[in-house]
Parts: sequence; C-alpha cells; structure tokens
Amino acid sequence: MTTQQLIDQIKIKKSFLCVGLDVDLNKIPKHLLELEDPIFEFNKAIIDATHDLTVSYKPNTAFYEAYGIKGWISLQKTINYINEKHPEIFTIADAKRGDIGNTSSMYAKAFFEDLSFDSVTVAPYMGKDSVEPFLAFENKHTIMLALTSNEGAFDFQTLNVDGKELYKQVLGTSKTWKNSENLMYVVGATKAEYFTEIRKIVPHSFLLVPGVGAQGGSLSEVCKYGMNDNVGLLINSSRGIIYASNGTDFAEVARAEALKMQQEMEEIISLKFKV
Amino acid sequence: MTTQQLIDQIKIKKSFLCVGLDVDLNKIPKHLLELEDPIFEFNKAIIDATHDLTVSYKPNTAFYEAYGIKGWISLQKTINYINEKHPEIFTIADAKRGDIGNTSSMYAKAFFEDLSFDSVTVAPYMGKDSVEPFLAFENKHTIMLALTSNEGAFDFQTLNVDGKELYKQVLGTSKTWKNSENLMYVVGATKAEYFTEIRKIVPHSFLLVPGVGAQGGSLSEVCKYGMNDNVGLLINSSRGIIYASNGTDFAEVARAEALKMQQEMEEIISLKFKV
Repeated sequence: MTTQQLIDQIKIKKSFLCVGLDVDLNKIPKHLLELEDPIFEFNKAIIDATHDLTVSYKPNTAFYEAYGIKGWISLQKTINYINEKHPEIFTIADAKRGDIGNTSSMYAKAFFEDLSFDSVTVAPYMGKDSVEPFLAFENKHTIMLALTSNEGAFDFQTLNVDGKELYKQVLGTSKTWKNSENLMYVVGATKAEYFTEIRKIVPHSFLLVPGVGAQGGSLSEVCKYGMNDNVGLLINSSRGIIYASNGTDFAEVARAEALKMQQEMEEIISLKFKV
Repeated sequence: MTTQQLIDQIKIKKSFLCVGLDVDLNKIPKHLLELEDPIFEFNKAIIDATHDLTVSYKPNTAFYEAYGIKGWISLQKTINYINEKHPEIFTIADAKRGDIGNTSSMYAKAFFEDLSFDSVTVAPYMGKDSVEPFLAFENKHTIMLALTSNEGAFDFQTLNVDGKELYKQVLGTSKTWKNSENLMYVVGATKAEYFTEIRKIVPHSFLLVPGVGAQGGSLSEVCKYGMNDNVGLLINSSRGIIYASNGTDFAEVARAEALKMQQEMEEIISLKFKV
C-alpha cells in the first residue's frame, strides 16, 4: 500500500484508528475456546465488526508466538483474512525486529513477502544496516521505535546525547538512511507534550501512537501537537476495544468502543480540516 | 540450565564455542532440498557432527520466520532434537525481542516455555519493563544487546551519553534490574579493544560474542581482553562453520572447522588456567 492510499482511506473513513489484535487466550470469551482456532475466530469477529471504523489492524507477534506453531497459523489466517476481505486496510506486524543486515533481510521477507503485511515495527538499537533492508521494499513501510509509551522509555530513549535526547537523535539519523521515505515512527501517547518537538524533526512522517486509553494518553492532546496536513497519525487501541466485553457480545461491544473513537476522530478531522 | 552447568560444560569440553544455526535454503547443499524438511535435516546433520565440540547452539529466528509456518516447525524440531539428544547444550534463541511488559512476557513464554530454549537475545531500547519479564524465569538467561558487531553499532550504541557511551549506560543500568543475575550480553568481536572497559562494568557476566571469523574479529584478542575466571565468553560462529562446504560433505567439513576453533579455545584455556 502507498502512503497516499493510506491517507485516502483516512479521509474516506474519517478515522485514523488502528485496532491492535493482541489476542490472549486468557482474556477472550470462554465460548470461543471450544472452537478449533479460537485466536483466529476472535480476530475474525473483531474484524467483521470494526473494519469500516478502522484504517489499520496491528497484530502483535508476541501474542501469536506464545502459542508456537498454532499461533503462527492463527497469525497467517488473520492477515490472509484481512488482505482478502479488506485489502484497503493498512496492516502492521508489530514485531519490533532488528538484526544485522542479512538477518534483517530475512525478517523483511518474513513479514512483507511470506505474510504480506504492509508494514512492520523495528527497533533502532543496531542502527542503519539493521533497518535499511526493511526500507528496500517498495510500497512497504517500516515503523521504527522512537519514543515508546512504557515506563522504560525513560531508561535510555530520553538520555541526553550531545545536548539532545536519544530518541531525537534516532529520528534525525534515520532520515539520512536510504529509502527513508518508507519510515514511520512509534511515539507513545503518554508523552503528548513531546509531539511538538518530534514534528520539527519529522513533519511529514506517519506516527503510530500506542498508549491512548488503557495506558492513559489523551487523543485530543496527541492530535493537537502531533497531527500534520495529512493527519499523519495512526492511533492504536488494543485492550480498550478488543476486551471491552468478554461475553458473547464481545464483537458488538468492541464495535461500540471503536465507533466512539472513530466519532471523536471524525470531529477532530472536521475541526482541523473544516470538512 | 544454571550458569554453573554452562561453566562445567565449558571445562569438560574445553570449548566455549557457540554454533549459529542460521539456515538459508539458498546456501545449504542442493541434495537436501529434496527432503521433506531441508532446514531440520541440515541442522540435524550439523548437530550430529559438532555437538561434542560446542557448548551452545544458536538458531537465529529470522531464518526460520522467513519460511513462515514451515520455518517455525523446523525451529521447533531443531530445539526438540537438541534438548532430547544433547540436554547438556546451552540453547540460545537469537530473537532480539523486546516490547512493553505484558507483551515481553508473551515472548518469554514463547521461547522459554513453548520452545524450551535456555536463553533468548533481547534489545534494550525499551528499557527495564521490556526486559524484566524475561529475567523472571528461573534458570533461564536473557542475553541483551550491548555493543553489536555490525557497522550500525556506531549509529547509536557508541554515542556519548553524559560522558559515557550509550552501551556502557545500558550495561550499567541493566545491573540494577530485578533478577539481573540472569543477564548475559552481546558484545561483538569486531571491537576487541572495548572488552577491557566492558569487563569493568560486568566482570562476572557471560558475553555472547558474534563476529569472529566471517566478520573479521580475532579470537585471541577477544579472549585476551574479555575472558574472566569462569571463561565468561561464548564465541559464536555461524557461516564459517555451517557453510564451510555446500557439498555432500558439508557436515564433515563443518566438524573440521568447529574442531579448529575448539582446539584454539583449548589452547587458550590451558594457557590461561594452566590446566
């Protein structure tokens, strides 16, 4: 998917919501556990109930790997289902990978070719040659961790490096890499005041924003400081939507939660762009 | 496996070699491609030929994920084969994972419980709560990236943070985390002169050292500056051993290469410890 196609979808759906498919067998409705592939059935129901309200789905690979081969099969079925039924949806493999060059190429092949995701999240610690192999794929997107939403973000990401926080150094340096136009960045909503500074470094890039809702971040604050002329934000919600109910009505309740967020987003878009 | 059991094995085998099982279908002998699971058959042959010369095997997960579900099955069969046939071998899932707390727990479950690896590599960028869930597993080991062997290591890892390079900050901070005695660190052999400084911060920890051989690092230099009283090093070699031949004699030639390294290690151990 091209960036323009993503922007078009945001305008059509009046939504920049990303639904995180972080499926934990201990949290999904009990009645699904009797089915052959509870994880896929859960995802399928969530997708069927929310696809018109969201522009993106983001399975976190950890939740699938935890169930071994079965989990990997559920992941494959989930991405295939999205790509077949809703090819307009921007898919994110939240994998936070990164390794030396030839090894990163294997990861890129895994997520972009074998699984056909539109994008994958990567970690920056190993530098340029660990990220560039991902950037080489046309119309695929590499979403690099910049400033994450967790407490540990303050351990290293905000350390002062020659007068500038490390995450700013990461943002700035990444712009010099080959095919850097294929980069997006993870910036946590819990740090809304940081968005002003971040937008000075990467004004045009899409930012994937976790941490709204469950982790305490505010949608309006993030939009105030982080939005650009193409919206430029994907706001992720996982637990707040998919686990809003663990009864037989889970998909319906998930839809209601997604709708609330979409309506808030529609209002923000209409105020900002006067549409 | 306990750290003491690993040390005992190093003494028994007079080896601190780790063989990297980074299996690329384009590089393995052609005759294996006709078999049902070429990746597992390749690993099995390498393991059968080298298990008495090495104390550790390290499959890099990227090479398995690149083949999707099939690859994940090959990884499962490989780790099961090692654990059943050679339970004395220290196994490393080279996965370089790391995510927010509850998600890192899922990764830990995947590698320590579902796949039964002794250890897993992790990336430090997301800080304390992204690593501690791995450290909570008893007799399991978490090998954190400190200073990697690739060129990109100089992009961020060696940046000056308050008068100290970032990787030193990472080493120092990690020692304050809960169950930090379960930490080991990745330090590239291509930077042998850095080992002196690193040993001042983590004198007792095991260091997993990639980059000897193919990437140009010197075994004797690494040992000179990096060895501690328990050896404290695992020297990884992947391509130099497993792809030494791509003919039908590949396992035999891999053994010959592993033997060369083991003999060099035996000499270093006997000089250092006068045994």
